[in-house]
Amino acid sequence: MNDSYVHGYEARENERLQDQAGALVELLHDDTTYPAGNLVLEVGCGVGAQTLILARRSPDAQFTSIDISAESLGRAEQKTAAAGLTNVKFEQADIFDLPYKSESFDHVFVCFVLEHLSHPREALMILKNVLRPSGTITVIEGDHASTFFYPDNVVAHAAIQSLVKVQAQAGGNALIGRQLYPLMLEAGFDDVKVSPRMVYVDGSRPDLIDAFTKKTFTAMIEGARESAIAADLIDPERFDEGVKALYRAAESDGVFCYTFFKAVARKSEP
Amino acid sequence: MNDSYVHGYEARENERLQDQAGALVELLHDDTTYPAGNLVLEVGCGVGAQTLILARRSPDAQFTSIDISAESLGRAEQKTAAAGLTNVKFEQADIFDLPYKSESFDHVFVCFVLEHLSHPREALMILKNVLRPSGTITVIEGDHASTFFYPDNVVAHAAIQSLVKVQAQAGGNALIGRQLYPLMLEAGFDDVKVSPRMVYVDGSRPDLIDAFTKKTFTAMIEGARESAIAADLIDPERFDEGVKALYRAAESDGVFCYTFFKAVARKSEP
Repeated sequence: MNDSYVHGYEARENERLQDQAGALVELLHDDTTYPAGNLVLEVGCGVGAQTLILARRSPDAQFTSIDISAESLGRAEQKTAAAGLTNVKFEQADIFDLPYKSESFDHVFVCFVLEHLSHPREALMILKNVLRPSGTITVIEGDHASTFFYPDNVVAHAAIQSLVKVQAQAGGNALIGRQLYPLMLEAGFDDVKVSPRMVYVDGSRPDLIDAFTKKTFTAMIEGARESAIAADLIDPERFDEGVKALYRAAESDGVFCYTFFKAVARKSEP
Repeated sequence: MNDSYVHGYEARENERLQDQAGALVELLHDDTTYPAGNLVLEVGCGVGAQTLILARRSPDAQFTSIDISAESLGRAEQKTAAAGLTNVKFEQADIFDLPYKSESFDHVFVCFVLEHLSHPREALMILKNVLRPSGTITVIEGDHASTFFYPDNVVAHAAIQSLVKVQAQAGGNALIGRQLYPLMLEAGFDDVKVSPRMVYVDGSRPDLIDAFTKKTFTAMIEGARESAIAADLIDPERFDEGVKALYRAAESDGVFCYTFFKAVARKSEP
């Protein structure tokens, strides 16, 4: 959401986010639909990976999708136009300085955003303010230290930890998924329900090995190589050895597990 | 399955296994039922925690439940008798020296057993031998290093790792859950399907906090205290600090995650 956004904005990253969106749609979004005529704020839409899914799944709801990056918004807009979607309005905005009045939206949707913020609870409270009473908020976040795999490998965990630390130094929290339940309560939401969504990948799913283990997760770790090394968080050789062990877990007799968390909650009546 | 069984056979352990069985029945066993008249071998039934569930869920199947411990079998037998179940026969037997002819059973069921064996693949091949062609095998195992929690705590992970090491020194593998898919393939089974079963516990589930986080998982870690310290795998102070951090994750604003794995596979036609 700002200059310190660790995933970068390059072409390869864009591709990664597309792969991720494709492979994970069912797992993450199957239970999210919005009624006709409802106004939904999507926060931190980026290049529109989730926007397309949301807008297609709820064709009669009206989406306002915001991001701080004009370039990302441009790509997101191109994509929704190419897909023939007419129920999304894009606006450049900062989550901490929203140009909306209180109670402007029926629902709020936040996906892969809180992990990058130094003040996620405050962000949630701001979003609660633009939500109407009894409106819902949906938050989806990953948790990089939920990762485990076979064969297990301590150096691969060290490489993952180096990304966790890069993200922490930038003010983020790559372990925020596990924390969603207390965070939502602290922000004052009611009826908080959190469910884990584990991506389990073994040799019976070569499509997921490719789309998730390699092109989503391992590509994300590889994307942090220069930052992690520049910040002296890990040696180049050790980092590369860890990445190699992640590719090993992506072979046909390997297993890979990663858990996303989805929280749905309600704003209380006044 | 032998003298080095790390969980011990004391009363408290017995109680723990009962709590575990109660809280996890749905998550682990909901999709396991056997047809009327089918013969099912339950391997390593212990004190009968799973036996009761199996026999109740498939009242017209015939179970043969084996264990190496006569004492455990006695308790299991008492329990099934007290529950009025008449479709279970208990027999004392060693998985590596089974008193059954080839193809004696329609199905095999194994729960929390492979983690204690130094040769799990060989055990699976022996079980394949007593299974009829196109019969099924169901294997359920935990994975102690799948554990993560909020607040995260490095000392709690060290305490967990000390149990993992105790189990490894006894020839077992506390991380076997993630490995089920390749293991079943290596043992020669067909149609191997593995699904993760995550126990997710937050403040909305005080029953699970009590039954799983405290009385199952943390009690199991505490049960390894003397062995881990005697084997010089961890300092007493560090161990106790780790256990304290696990109880911290069991408070109402804490979160706890643990993943079991369930594999179902088929013996190929000759």
